[in-house]
Amino acid sequence: MSSVLSGIKIAVLGGDDRELILVAELVKRGATVVAVGFPREKISHGAFVVNSVEEACKDTEVLILPLPGTNEKGVIRAVYAEQELQLTEKAIASVSRNALIIIGSARKYLKEWATKYDLTLMEIVEMDEIAILNSIPTAEGALQIAMEETSSTIHGSKTCVIGFGRVGITMARTLKALGSEVTVVARNSGQLARAYEMGCNRAGYEDLHEIMNHTNIVFNTVPCMVLDSSILKYANPEVLIVDLATQPGGTDFEAANTFGLKAILAPGLPGKVAPVFAGKILADVIPKLLIKEFAELDKDLLYG
Amino acid sequence: MSSVLSGIKIAVLGGDDRELILVAELVKRGATVVAVGFPREKISHGAFVVNSVEEACKDTEVLILPLPGTNEKGVIRAVYAEQELQLTEKAIASVSRNALIIIGSARKYLKEWATKYDLTLMEIVEMDEIAILNSIPTAEGALQIAMEETSSTIHGSKTCVIGFGRVGITMARTLKALGSEVTVVARNSGQLARAYEMGCNRAGYEDLHEIMNHTNIVFNTVPCMVLDSSILKYANPEVLIVDLATQPGGTDFEAANTFGLKAILAPGLPGKVAPVFAGKILADVIPKLLIKEFAELDKDLLYG
Amino acid sequence: MSSVLSGIKIAVLGGDDRELILVAELVKRGATVVAVGFPREKISHGAFVVNSVEEACKDTEVLILPLPGTNEKGVIRAVYAEQELQLTEKAIASVSRNALIIIGSARKYLKEWATKYDLTLMEIVEMDEIAILNSIPTAEGALQIAMEETSSTIHGSKTCVIGFGRVGITMARTLKALGSEVTVVARNSGQLARAYEMGCNRAGYEDLHEIMNHTNIVFNTVPCMVLDSSILKYANPEVLIVDLATQPGGTDFEAANTFGLKAILAPGLPGKVAPVFAGKILADVIPKLLIKEFAELDKDLLYG
Amino acid sequence: MSSVLSGIKIAVLGGDDRELILVAELVKRGATVVAVGFPREKISHGAFVVNSVEEACKDTEVLILPLPGTNEKGVIRAVYAEQELQLTEKAIASVSRNALIIIGSARKYLKEWATKYDLTLMEIVEMDEIAILNSIPTAEGALQIAMEETSSTIHGSKTCVIGFGRVGITMARTLKALGSEVTVVARNSGQLARAYEMGCNRAGYEDLHEIMNHTNIVFNTVPCMVLDSSILKYANPEVLIVDLATQPGGTDFEAANTFGLKAILAPGLPGKVAPVFAGKILADVIPKLLIKEFAELDKDLLYG
Repeated sequence: MSSVLSGIKIAVLGGDDRELILVAELVKRGATVVAVGFPREKISHGAFVVNSVEEACKDTEVLILPLPGTNEKGVIRAVYAEQELQLTEKAIASVSRNALIIIGSARKYLKEWATKYDLTLMEIVEMDEIAILNSIPTAEGALQIAMEETSSTIHGSKTCVIGFGRVGITMARTLKALGSEVTVVARNSGQLARAYEMGCNRAGYEDLHEIMNHTNIVFNTVPCMVLDSSILKYANPEVLIVDLATQPGGTDFEAANTFGLKAILAPGLPGKVAPVFAGKILADVIPKLLIKEFAELDKDLLYG
Repeated sequence: MSSVLSGIKIAVLGGDDRELILVAELVKRGATVVAVGFPREKISHGAFVVNSVEEACKDTEVLILPLPGTNEKGVIRAVYAEQELQLTEKAIASVSRNALIIIGSARKYLKEWATKYDLTLMEIVEMDEIAILNSIPTAEGALQIAMEETSSTIHGSKTCVIGFGRVGITMARTLKALGSEVTVVARNSGQLARAYEMGCNRAGYEDLHEIMNHTNIVFNTVPCMVLDSSILKYANPEVLIVDLATQPGGTDFEAANTFGLKAILAPGLPGKVAPVFAGKILADVIPKLLIKEFAELDKDLLYG
Repeated sequence: MSSVLSGIKIAVLGGDDRELILVAELVKRGATVVAVGFPREKISHGAFVVNSVEEACKDTEVLILPLPGTNEKGVIRAVYAEQELQLTEKAIASVSRNALIIIGSARKYLKEWATKYDLTLMEIVEMDEIAILNSIPTAEGALQIAMEETSSTIHGSKTCVIGFGRVGITMARTLKALGSEVTVVARNSGQLARAYEMGCNRAGYEDLHEIMNHTNIVFNTVPCMVLDSSILKYANPEVLIVDLATQPGGTDFEAANTFGLKAILAPGLPGKVAPVFAGKILADVIPKLLIKEFAELDKDLLYG
Repeated sequence: MSSVLSGIKIAVLGGDDRELILVAELVKRGATVVAVGFPREKISHGAFVVNSVEEACKDTEVLILPLPGTNEKGVIRAVYAEQELQLTEKAIASVSRNALIIIGSARKYLKEWATKYDLTLMEIVEMDEIAILNSIPTAEGALQIAMEETSSTIHGSKTCVIGFGRVGITMARTLKALGSEVTVVARNSGQLARAYEMGCNRAGYEDLHEIMNHTNIVFNTVPCMVLDSSILKYANPEVLIVDLATQPGGTDFEAANTFGLKAILAPGLPGKVAPVFAGKILADVIPKLLIKEFAELDKDLLYG
């Protein structure tokens, strides 16, 4: 399997410790890796470090951008870069024909460029495999925040998990395992049946104000305004809210502040609390994606 | 809530202990319940027992058939009936206008009659809520079979769960909780990520022959021929196969027999091992369905 | 390690499938094993099968009797023996000087013979290691009984474990893992603190009549009369009592019968429900005991 | 029950947030509580705040000192005190006849004073109930440290728990629940059997150097030098050691430092990470102790 990426040119543009682990894996599997936005000494032997996005992109067959992607102006998130990394149309135009771009999620301009230059764009942050694996460090990071911010234990506490998708399931399982009494709030009766099977209490959104009244810690995973002031006003003053939904979260933080409630927005936990684990996820999933993609490409070339 | 079903006429045709619990609940909520296929003394006070399917169906607004439904000739499964209960077109034709038929899953003729007489047919066996709740007694029943048929413990055993849907997830969680080393076999990488998060080993179907070689107990939940002779020939002679998929299961039982392997087809466990629990599921879910259905009907009548 | 038992003569007198596994292990480790009470074809190659207890005992350095031991008249429990195996003083008198006798627990006459002939007697049924490992098949066997005898699931049930020693801890953990709400009844506040840490409810014996009233399944592990008629009269009529304490158990079975309660005495589960697992325990622990014993003997001989 | 402590005079000398919760409970149960070493506004209504240890001790029937007790010179741990609280013989001499002194563990001089003045001294830090309940915040605090100090997750990590007593059991259960692969190191074969039952790997101290080589996080609970340089030299450079044993712990921290290993001594976690929970333990256990003690005293007075 290690030789399948042999000779393929991959550019890694910015990122953090996770990309360092990914680069090492790609090198190990035989790819020719060019990285930008990292100091030479941090990058795995066998990878090339260049100084500009343009240089990295030129003729590359695969372009890997970090999970948090770029901002609206094209600046790539790159914690180790000494100067801003700017993604430009010129750079994108210079990649190899039919190249593959892998990114957490793409802004509008990147989607347009991909269409214009006929590149395959893969947005991976919402892929089940990555999202579920990342839910593990997310749940542990949320737990760490809860432990740091409360003066009691998780064991014996009453907690509430809002939303029962990829993060919510892991969060509920983890809290339950530590001995908390967990209430899951969700709309879908199938999800609530699963919550029950896992030993959690079940509730609907109509029960939320009641729940806020007697819960110690609330973990929100739903990226909509679920904890607005009409709900928060019922919260017991000691409650801790940990909001795990993508920015701007699902809590009215201003209202929480007005009511004197402690509410913490905690997005992007995997890269913060467990970069090594999160890096291994990328190092595990991205090569599989590439192999599958190139295998299909070969088929197309052969039979197409 | 109890009064919402008040005055609605519901016919319950056959079934087993589960329907007895359902009938009691429907009576409690104010419905007028007519049952056929049960002895008078088993049926809850307040429900009527009649002697024929036709009598029960006449002018009824809701018709409830058991989860296992009818056979190809229209015979309704009814363990307490002294004589065969036959579902006829004449009976169906006599129900109230716009009536609702609830059944596990419907045969072709029943679907045609529903269309012909403009009745709403709800097949509930595949509803997430019912299927997930039923996965609990299914997993415990499978465990009971495994305990009865092996001479070692689940704790410390190597087990394999094929398929990671509604039953597979519960089965894996249960085995893991008892201290087994569980390997989940599935195709979907998101499902495998979840299995990993739950502490299970992950494998693909291509690993199945290898797994059969060193596993103590295999639980199949996939209703396709997954354990055919090409796989079974690799099985260790001591393996136990418990097949939970809908009849005819996913095992080549003849081949298993030829190889001297112990393989057990165990469909319909909830009604067998935990009729009270399974009855409570019906008593919990069906009234909610009815209330929702009639509420929508009212809306249609008001605004339609 | 395998050679340490090399050349040591060991007699295995009766027993069941567990002893077959033990014999195989002892042979593997180099001992000279003589067995009585088993058909030739069941006994591992390399062991000798003889026809009488006397023949087996003669000059043996180690004598292994089954965990259930002998009855008051000296009859050894031997499920495969074609005729009764009788342990006689004559046989005991013929063993090697300083020989070691291993048995579950010894009757008075055997203790006297051991003293008289200066033999070392080890009663192993109460050894922590064996008792705790055996608690695993005991708990699973109790679970199997509970599953077979009830018509609901363990998940979601209210269960009670009386006594929180070696079996009680395992029983509580197992029930909790399956999703039951478990109440532990014990006297010792340290044990109750541990039960709380494991997520169980805590209660004292003074709460027992109240508990009996709303519990689905009660598992007793205390070998005293704890469930007498003064308690049983408060039991809800649907309760199931599984008594795991050594015969005669801790339940007044006659009173239970009078009150119409289902109560099952289930001693010796490991050998019944999981003989292979239970045999492996013996095959794991007894060689370690022998090695330790002979190592000390050697020391005594050298330095004594 | 609340009236049993009615009128009894209790002095609380120093401590932290835990004692605040305890004071509130004692007041609620009717005791006359005098506290020293706390600001007036933090102390529950109904309790008296005095300015000196002497004043608090005079004629008191119960004297409560904090779990961490006093230092060698008699200085009482009192985080809210504005000036040092000094326990003097004069103060002890002024308490009521037959008074009860409750403290975590007592220094030599306090034991001597108790004997000299005929006072009952209860050292509670080693009481099973308190130690086991405190093991819950200890394990969560240790987890929090581990999460903060590592860049991977607990899920999927290899961890080792040295010692399997009151803290070790809870630590192992907690790690296992979070999805770690846990190895328990202990000497006692019964403890190792229990670790196995809980799903952990078992090892002896002779395996420790090997374990250090491939483990991510080691939690020591044994208050002896178990991780000395002869063991630490085998540790993988990335290992994290969290030492939970009473000061000075069981790790050679100097050697760890020399080898470049990260080792953290973390005693007294309950009061630090979960003072509310730890306070509730005192508020739960100490009144029960007092009630029992005074009940026995009454008996002695009646029948003595």
